[in-house]
Amino acid sequence: MANNNSNQYRLGMIGLGTMGRNLLLNMADKGFSVTGYDKDHKMIAKLEEEGKSHNLEGFDNISDFVNSLSTPRTLVMLVPAGPIVDSVIAELKPLLSKGDIIIDSGNSHFTDTNRRVDELEKDGLHFFGMGISGGEEGARFGPSMMPGGDKQAYNVVKDIFDAIAAKVNNDPCVTYIGPGASGHFVKMVHNGIEYAIMELIAEVYGMLKNGLGYSNADIYGVFKKWNEGRLQSFLLEITTEIFAFKDGDSDIELLDKIKDEARSKGTGKWTSEVSMELQLPIPTINEAVSNRDLSKFKQLRVSLEDAFGKKDTKINISIEDLGDAFYFSMISAYAQGMHLLVQASKEYQYDLKLQEIAKIWRGGCIIRAKFLEDIYQAYEKNNSLEHLFGDSGIQKIITSTLKGTRNTISACVNAGLGIPAFASTLTYFDTITTGRMPSNLIQAQRDFFGAHTFERIDEDGVFHADWNKL
Amino acid sequence: MANNNSNQYRLGMIGLGTMGRNLLLNMADKGFSVTGYDKDHKMIAKLEEEGKSHNLEGFDNISDFVNSLSTPRTLVMLVPAGPIVDSVIAELKPLLSKGDIIIDSGNSHFTDTNRRVDELEKDGLHFFGMGISGGEEGARFGPSMMPGGDKQAYNVVKDIFDAIAAKVNNDPCVTYIGPGASGHFVKMVHNGIEYAIMELIAEVYGMLKNGLGYSNADIYGVFKKWNEGRLQSFLLEITTEIFAFKDGDSDIELLDKIKDEARSKGTGKWTSEVSMELQLPIPTINEAVSNRDLSKFKQLRVSLEDAFGKKDTKINISIEDLGDAFYFSMISAYAQGMHLLVQASKEYQYDLKLQEIAKIWRGGCIIRAKFLEDIYQAYEKNNSLEHLFGDSGIQKIITSTLKGTRNTISACVNAGLGIPAFASTLTYFDTITTGRMPSNLIQAQRDFFGAHTFERIDEDGVFHADWNKL
Repeated sequence: MANNNSNQYRLGMIGLGTMGRNLLLNMADKGFSVTGYDKDHKMIAKLEEEGKSHNLEGFDNISDFVNSLSTPRTLVMLVPAGPIVDSVIAELKPLLSKGDIIIDSGNSHFTDTNRRVDELEKDGLHFFGMGISGGEEGARFGPSMMPGGDKQAYNVVKDIFDAIAAKVNNDPCVTYIGPGASGHFVKMVHNGIEYAIMELIAEVYGMLKNGLGYSNADIYGVFKKWNEGRLQSFLLEITTEIFAFKDGDSDIELLDKIKDEARSKGTGKWTSEVSMELQLPIPTINEAVSNRDLSKFKQLRVSLEDAFGKKDTKINISIEDLGDAFYFSMISAYAQGMHLLVQASKEYQYDLKLQEIAKIWRGGCIIRAKFLEDIYQAYEKNNSLEHLFGDSGIQKIITSTLKGTRNTISACVNAGLGIPAFASTLTYFDTITTGRMPSNLIQAQRDFFGAHTFERIDEDGVFHADWNKL
Repeated sequence: MANNNSNQYRLGMIGLGTMGRNLLLNMADKGFSVTGYDKDHKMIAKLEEEGKSHNLEGFDNISDFVNSLSTPRTLVMLVPAGPIVDSVIAELKPLLSKGDIIIDSGNSHFTDTNRRVDELEKDGLHFFGMGISGGEEGARFGPSMMPGGDKQAYNVVKDIFDAIAAKVNNDPCVTYIGPGASGHFVKMVHNGIEYAIMELIAEVYGMLKNGLGYSNADIYGVFKKWNEGRLQSFLLEITTEIFAFKDGDSDIELLDKIKDEARSKGTGKWTSEVSMELQLPIPTINEAVSNRDLSKFKQLRVSLEDAFGKKDTKINISIEDLGDAFYFSMISAYAQGMHLLVQASKEYQYDLKLQEIAKIWRGGCIIRAKFLEDIYQAYEKNNSLEHLFGDSGIQKIITSTLKGTRNTISACVNAGLGIPAFASTLTYFDTITTGRMPSNLIQAQRDFFGAHTFERIDEDGVFHADWNKL
């Protein structure tokens, strides 16, 4: 346990679970003088054990902990999102002074972060929402971080986060995101994209297994090869490993023993909810969230399979076509997420720099992928790009993968293989590239039954027709 | 203007716009002694003009209006949803007595209704949220109504609503829905289904026009024929008429002159947001909401069509297959909405009677359809049916339309015709009838990068694997 040495440490971590501990060890590795606080002695003991080469000591007394920090004090919180964040803030507040900085690095909902920023501003305290991605490994050896809050205050801590972040071409995977809750917003959308990519990979698994009859070893081979090329990404890399991972000492892959009910912690559904609120369509992410939910209706699914009869889901497609479909859909999932960021930036006045966001997602985070370099380049070329599909480089990739995508999806549609994320991605593309949609009919219907009026293509104004007078 | 005759009227309407006025005229037609209030003299004049055969008089003074009602007073509000509802309530409250009933018949969000129920309960006032469907015509001659609130209080007004509701086989299209905000919740889901059906019809229009090259007259013929059979529904009926409706004195259909940017008032997105919150998948409704949103990105769509090149969207399918696909998808959209009601009923303890809801949707409302008789029968047979797909009658329809559905959707997928609602409906069906989904992979991934644990098929408990130890 630490002695009460006043003003000794530059940064203090609240919450010494795996994520908080690993982030703190990462900082200590980089030479920063840091300490941690946890109510749980076991967590302090773990910190001191794992950080013994740095003489890293923790506090169990919050006042001593706060007093041990140099001013302005910098406190990073890694505690579960929700009411615990508020209760920690309430404990801290009387101990802090004007200009101190609190950084919430959990997955808080951005509206909570907004509220906390406003509340603490009244006391002269800077509150940051900072999304961290990369899991436990990332926190320990280099995550991607998305801090949002007061820009001046960020300069006080910038060197620490630059030092601990993952690096791509020597560029740190952290940047000041924007004001208010923008950091948590961007992290939420990151997670929405993560849901989409995970669902797409699961659907590829379904196609390989149930459509093409591949064994786990075969699938391992496909993913391994894919991960050496354009599809290279962290999620594909760990997926490849999963297909080789045995259940204990047995010859069977653990994957086969895992229940097919996917859980979630909410950031995906938040992304979908906000997109509905902002009226910015992200159907691939919506389907990823919906399909996790659907997976939980196990009993219903089994009973309906019995009722309708098990389908013969064999399909006849090439691995090249399937790879094209995955690449096409992965790009589109990022494109939807980035489009949501563009819209949110306008709506909430975040002034987001899309090229900076793409840049810090290239390394450290769960959605890092070779393809993010292309996204980054697209925004570097044109930092006011409204939609990724508008970039000529992206257009070339899309055009070259479209045929394989159509082959793959139509095969699944005919065979009865459930591929909601793939199908919605293609219908999204086919709709957003349609200059004249059939939505004029919806306006006619709305005006017919509810007198909701319509606009004309040949005349300005708002019109209503007396449809019943036929 | 009405004289101040105390305790004369049984029911008073607040807000004499078209909906409120028509509903009041409907009540007067049925012999009820009713009156109305509006700040706008023009609205009162309209009421008195249209209701002159009943000597219907309106008030512009709210105290006189309230005093003119017999007790317990029954007040129906038809004012725009949102803060106006609260300000009307604030004006009314000091004028009312314990036991009086306020019925909000606008499209208020059910969480607002919850709050108002609780607030007014403290003053001994009964607050009802009552969804009304049927548009202006319905209000005037027989709507479908979904009242939720205190059951005892409902008995005070039941005879009025029974009398003015649409009738199917002499059964009124109104029933007590449940406690709290359940009436507004059910109306919201009704509207979600409405969004889905309208989107499906718009996509059918796209297929007929851009896929099969049909003229408006051809499409009129298809819809007219369809509307004489199993697909008969209010929305198809008005759609048929839209395809014959000329632009003024010209030979051109007005539809062709209407902008393809679909507007919305929010009930669809509320349905999607709530479904996300309840983790109950309704992908067809989500796509309907998303696609209205997408339609508003006109400039982006035109520029992307230019960039990617206009597609040749010709398809080769039969009208029979397309009709099957539409029938299949319509059923599935209702099934998703009903499933959401089942889940919400559990979550919010509404104790909804699904057979009663299907029954009152058979007539009067915008989503009335011949097929609702089948839905009603399914719940009559089994009032604890979890999902419509579990009913043997529905299964027969699904099975018989599935092949045509697959043909239609795969043709569009290959041709590049945007059909998000159709595609998501089929992938929903294909997933919910899959006993073993590939979602085990998602759990493995989550445990790999975030130690989120997993469950096993062969052993109870919660597990974590050391995936990195490969």
